Amino acid sequence: MTGLSASEADAGKLPQALPDIDWLDTDEIRLRQTSYWDASSLTARALARPTTTEEVSNVLRIASSTGQPVFTHGGRTTCVDAVRTDAGDIILSLERMNRILEIDPVEGIAVVEAGVVLQALQEAVAQAGMFLPLDLGARGTCTIGGNVATNAGGVNVLRYGMMRNLVLGMEAVLPTGEVISSMNRMLKNNSGFDLKQLFIGTEGLLGVVTKVVLRLEPDVGARDVAMLALDDFDAVLKLQADTKRTLAARLLSFEVMWGAYYDAVTADGGHRPPLPREAPFYVLVETVAAEAGGGETLLSLLERNLEGGIIADGVVAGSERERSDFWRVRDDFERILAEPPVYLYDVSLPLRSMEAYVGEVEKAFRDAFPDGALHVFGHICDGNLHLFLAPGTAGSDRPDMRRTADEAVYTALSRFEGAISAEHGIGREKKEWLPISRSPEEIALMRTLKRTLDPANILNRGLVFDV
Amino acid sequence: MTGLSASEADAGKLPQALPDIDWLDTDEIRLRQTSYWDASSLTARALARPTTTEEVSNVLRIASSTGQPVFTHGGRTTCVDAVRTDAGDIILSLERMNRILEIDPVEGIAVVEAGVVLQALQEAVAQAGMFLPLDLGARGTCTIGGNVATNAGGVNVLRYGMMRNLVLGMEAVLPTGEVISSMNRMLKNNSGFDLKQLFIGTEGLLGVVTKVVLRLEPDVGARDVAMLALDDFDAVLKLQADTKRTLAARLLSFEVMWGAYYDAVTADGGHRPPLPREAPFYVLVETVAAEAGGGETLLSLLERNLEGGIIADGVVAGSERERSDFWRVRDDFERILAEPPVYLYDVSLPLRSMEAYVGEVEKAFRDAFPDGALHVFGHICDGNLHLFLAPGTAGSDRPDMRRTADEAVYTALSRFEGAISAEHGIGREKKEWLPISRSPEEIALMRTLKRTLDPANILNRGLVFDV
Repeated sequence: MTGLSASEADAGKLPQALPDIDWLDTDEIRLRQTSYWDASSLTARALARPTTTEEVSNVLRIASSTGQPVFTHGGRTTCVDAVRTDAGDIILSLERMNRILEIDPVEGIAVVEAGVVLQALQEAVAQAGMFLPLDLGARGTCTIGGNVATNAGGVNVLRYGMMRNLVLGMEAVLPTGEVISSMNRMLKNNSGFDLKQLFIGTEGLLGVVTKVVLRLEPDVGARDVAMLALDDFDAVLKLQADTKRTLAARLLSFEVMWGAYYDAVTADGGHRPPLPREAPFYVLVETVAAEAGGGETLLSLLERNLEGGIIADGVVAGSERERSDFWRVRDDFERILAEPPVYLYDVSLPLRSMEAYVGEVEKAFRDAFPDGALHVFGHICDGNLHLFLAPGTAGSDRPDMRRTADEAVYTALSRFEGAISAEHGIGREKKEWLPISRSPEEIALMRTLKRTLDPANILNRGLVFDV
Repeated sequence: MTGLSASEADAGKLPQALPDIDWLDTDEIRLRQTSYWDASSLTARALARPTTTEEVSNVLRIASSTGQPVFTHGGRTTCVDAVRTDAGDIILSLERMNRILEIDPVEGIAVVEAGVVLQALQEAVAQAGMFLPLDLGARGTCTIGGNVATNAGGVNVLRYGMMRNLVLGMEAVLPTGEVISSMNRMLKNNSGFDLKQLFIGTEGLLGVVTKVVLRLEPDVGARDVAMLALDDFDAVLKLQADTKRTLAARLLSFEVMWGAYYDAVTADGGHRPPLPREAPFYVLVETVAAEAGGGETLLSLLERNLEGGIIADGVVAGSERERSDFWRVRDDFERILAEPPVYLYDVSLPLRSMEAYVGEVEKAFRDAFPDGALHVFGHICDGNLHLFLAPGTAGSDRPDMRRTADEAVYTALSRFEGAISAEHGIGREKKEWLPISRSPEEIALMRTLKRTLDPANILNRGLVFDV
């Protein structure tokens, strides 16, 4: 379809202009749920399922020349309202560009199309004897392209960094249709600007990621995991410092759950609690398995900190099954979502401010929603907390319910110089609050980049900021 | 000086327009050597030594409005001809913005001005009980701002990543004078575009870095180090795979020296050779010190690979002094530079292509320079080789000597899909060869970014690509 001019394709007539592409029509689109978090039906003019980069380029080129808004869809697990579309929009879904093109254990790389599901890639990499460091709750649905566009985090960031740190090379299509191929396979490449950074974590505003080269790591083998109870946040801070120092690179995850979160997910009918409920804090810690006879191990760390009064109680997983049971307490929070509305937040802030911050949020939230529920957990060594706020029955009457909840979370955050998104991104949901974390000069520079690369403002319009 | 308009300051009259800034004049500038690699005197209209971000902003704002070319200077250790200036240029040196503003071992961050010397920061961080992962030969002279602008690599990349991976937050000044402050202190922050990426590794073309927040790591404590001799490159590949797998995160460095390099730096009057000379390959490997009694250690790895015939000979450092002697063989190559010209190259390519690549370079080089010398060493686990080419006496007669040497290195490289710069950058020296590693579309996008952020093309003009 190369060479098709703007005049041949009116806005909205993309399916007719590009008949070789696999399109879904409005009725077929309506069968899809908007996102994991939004059960309403999708609405759009048409949904393209390209199978090649050239098809992606053709859609964008024509959309740019005709001013047709286009939204990119991956696994639609967004937490920040970033995939909802209007009746006049075109959806560009990468779901059929889901091939794993190459896994090379010698060079330690995987080459994949953007639509591959994270878990499918994790499994293929494991079969090749290597380890893909990215892991997060949505693994069974989210796609690598979405992980790149949102610079995904997850449970292994402490050891391996975020998605940005795993992307060696990339092919992306600019909103105007130009294909930028930077499929670098080396760990180091300072040959000119590192253009892939334009597309990592920019939520699809500057282009559509079509292929990536990812860095793999050697398989760490067996893991030790423990669930711990602690009496106060000071003990949590001391334990994380001790753990980081003594286990160092063998530490894989250090996840903290506030007591109310743990209690809610292990309440009757929920997960079996690995430790008695009602402790103020629970820590889930995972390390590379201890080597026979040597050095600090998870067990010796725990014994030392139990004796020192830092840990109140603890249990080590005795089997792979127990290990996944422990993780389910952290990962599977369906029970908290059972009575909507529940608002999810994803903030980062300095470690030493976390306890005071959660206290302030709790106070503001209690004032507004006396019978509401606040559940907190997080990757605290990354400085990252997730908060669930449920306004409760009394709160549900408030017309400004959502805004009041947002204010409880973000007003305190700005005092602690925190960030309104650690890993979920901004989407539409947090757009209004972006000035808490970014200066007018920073937002102006983001707009400049958007206007330069997407002059017709067609791609993921309205996410992150208004142009 | 805010509010000064373009008409008040003619091009070239910046010192008069901004008298509060500390300026050096042409005579004072001439006392400076251009760079570590270029002994000629610096030439420029004037050299500004600002002490505040506002002063940097004022220089750039007026330079932009008057079309005055400005070059940024850090420690001037560039290997790629990136700091040379002409008589009409203004130099902006960050040398007086060299304060360490904060080292926080609890949050694991350092906040510094861009002009701080790498080694000064390494030492201050060590005094605070933490570890700054960046380390490279030029540590005593290079500055953090230069390390950021060039995305520096060095000897710890394998374990900790390049400079990009260590920068959490940044303040930078755009060529037009706007100050972009993104002094994030958290490991994770997905609140809008990660603007600091615009200034990392872009060689100062898009702005001047004035402050950074760096990630620190826990001190790894004692280290084990060994020098090894190997009989062929296949053994090198097997050893690096074994080492990465079994020592995993405890591996800090794995440096390979081709035999000719080792022989040259340990020749009479040079470094004492830790192992007999004339082996085909030498490996310098450094790990976190073995824990009492536990797991794979550097020693057990060596014993196993000696028995298996992978390692031909080896010696473990018995003291800190021996350790630094071993490293000096790798780091201090003054003897190779003793008879100029010597050309330095910095390429990356897939591990499995390295031996064939060096063989091809050697052949092409021998044909052109029969009595020349080729010395190779590198961070091979990063895919990174450094090559020194000395044309020799016969070669010195060739008028196209440099170009012939470049062709020997880069023509083969393009066949192996390597990158012309792994860590040194492009500067002026490699500009001509950029199309080997970057497509026309990529270079066009780099130009678009440059034109957007530096419309008057004043900053580091002529580096990397022509606008």
